[in-house]
Amino acid sequence: MPRYALKVEYNGAPFAGWQRQADQPSVQGAIEAALAQLEKDVPSIAAAGRTDAGVHATGQVAQCDMARDWDPFRLSEALNWHLKPAPVAIVDCARVADDWHARFSAVERRYTYRLIARRAPLVHDAGLAWHVRGDLDPAPMAEAAKALIGKHDFTTFRASICQAASPVKTLDEVVVDPVDLPHGREIRFHLRARSFLHNQVRSIVGTLERVGAGAWPPARVAEALAACDRAACGPVAPPEGLYLTGVGYPDDPFAKG
Amino acid sequence: MPRYALKVEYNGAPFAGWQRQADQPSVQGAIEAALAQLEKDVPSIAAAGRTDAGVHATGQVAQCDMARDWDPFRLSEALNWHLKPAPVAIVDCARVADDWHARFSAVERRYTYRLIARRAPLVHDAGLAWHVRGDLDPAPMAEAAKALIGKHDFTTFRASICQAASPVKTLDEVVVDPVDLPHGREIRFHLRARSFLHNQVRSIVGTLERVGAGAWPPARVAEALAACDRAACGPVAPPEGLYLTGVGYPDDPFAKG
Repeated sequence: MPRYALKVEYNGAPFAGWQRQADQPSVQGAIEAALAQLEKDVPSIAAAGRTDAGVHATGQVAQCDMARDWDPFRLSEALNWHLKPAPVAIVDCARVADDWHARFSAVERRYTYRLIARRAPLVHDAGLAWHVRGDLDPAPMAEAAKALIGKHDFTTFRASICQAASPVKTLDEVVVDPVDLPHGREIRFHLRARSFLHNQVRSIVGTLERVGAGAWPPARVAEALAACDRAACGPVAPPEGLYLTGVGYPDDPFAKG
Repeated sequence: MPRYALKVEYNGAPFAGWQRQADQPSVQGAIEAALAQLEKDVPSIAAAGRTDAGVHATGQVAQCDMARDWDPFRLSEALNWHLKPAPVAIVDCARVADDWHARFSAVERRYTYRLIARRAPLVHDAGLAWHVRGDLDPAPMAEAAKALIGKHDFTTFRASICQAASPVKTLDEVVVDPVDLPHGREIRFHLRARSFLHNQVRSIVGTLERVGAGAWPPARVAEALAACDRAACGPVAPPEGLYLTGVGYPDDPFAKG
């Protein structure tokens, strides 16, 4: 069966997460339902990152196995047609080798977290960013974030239900990127690693928010990390600010010839 | 009665436009309903630009007259509380002179139109930009736009229901600002004038889109303008891409002391 890589964008709000569930809408379920309109008995699909309920994506990567030999562009067009009106779009599609795997071949995941600090309620970004009502100082957040870069035991920043075999991960990048808005300030957090623990990004951002608000001194983040104790973590940031923006592979399946 | 200037942000999707209507939701109606929660018999409010159904704002300016002497910050907070869950927010509020008028004192209006050209359906920007499925070339659009700058009879770019006394307006700026996206291209159009005719921005953007698509040579825009004939206009761009971004006054009522 020919295998295809799909680059997928979605708004997580209406979904219980990526993973198919018996009684709740999921992104995987929406794409599998669209595939079922194209061919009978399409096998289950797999994705690089199984995002949680409410989490968005601009660069999720999934794979599907088809019976017919589809032109990749036609496959993406047919899927987008049948996905309507769900807020899910196939933005790229490529034929890949039979042993390529969206999850197991991936060597890097990139996430962006959007936080908007302003007094008034969000309007155009409602549901697309975390709304924080007080102002935040990005400089101590950036300083605190440095302690997280590198190989560490991230037990502090890991959900209790996390199923990873080890809490040790290597965080390659945490960038704190402030943008002044006409009313308030947006802070974007860019994180990059081979793989992440469950809730790791949201735990880190929620902790850095405490630093930006002045409630935590920057050094407390390094102490929390060293404690290897979930109780040392700050509040977990809500899902609506989180975006899976990209997945890296040894050879980019979407690279244009 | 003390008069206040309100800077207002809204998502136009659920509204029949700015102006209050008997049987349909409007932005004016939403704000007046919130004001009615604060004081009895608040007079009708007025705005700088009476935006159409579905048109958004990030910098609409309105005025209200209150019986009590409100602290401007408290007034905006109270309004935002009562506006929930409507997608309308008061982002700034200032006390103004009794003879200041949101509409008649205004000397400049600024609009931005967001167009996203890409093959796949929009996800995060659905309802927040005009989705065009083919690619557009911004260079001839920018060239064609130059012909519109200055003082002209804009009959071609004016809705048949427009109530302005004269079709002659001075367009101070039309900027075509292309932004490359990971998948596709966004084009932002920034327009600035003392005042606009009904549907003028959407008529101009819809016409420039024809140029970007290669369907119209750039020179046809100048010819259409010179024709002073509504039939010479391109298709009118849809409301979901249009934002009233700012209003200018001889003295900015929101300038911080």
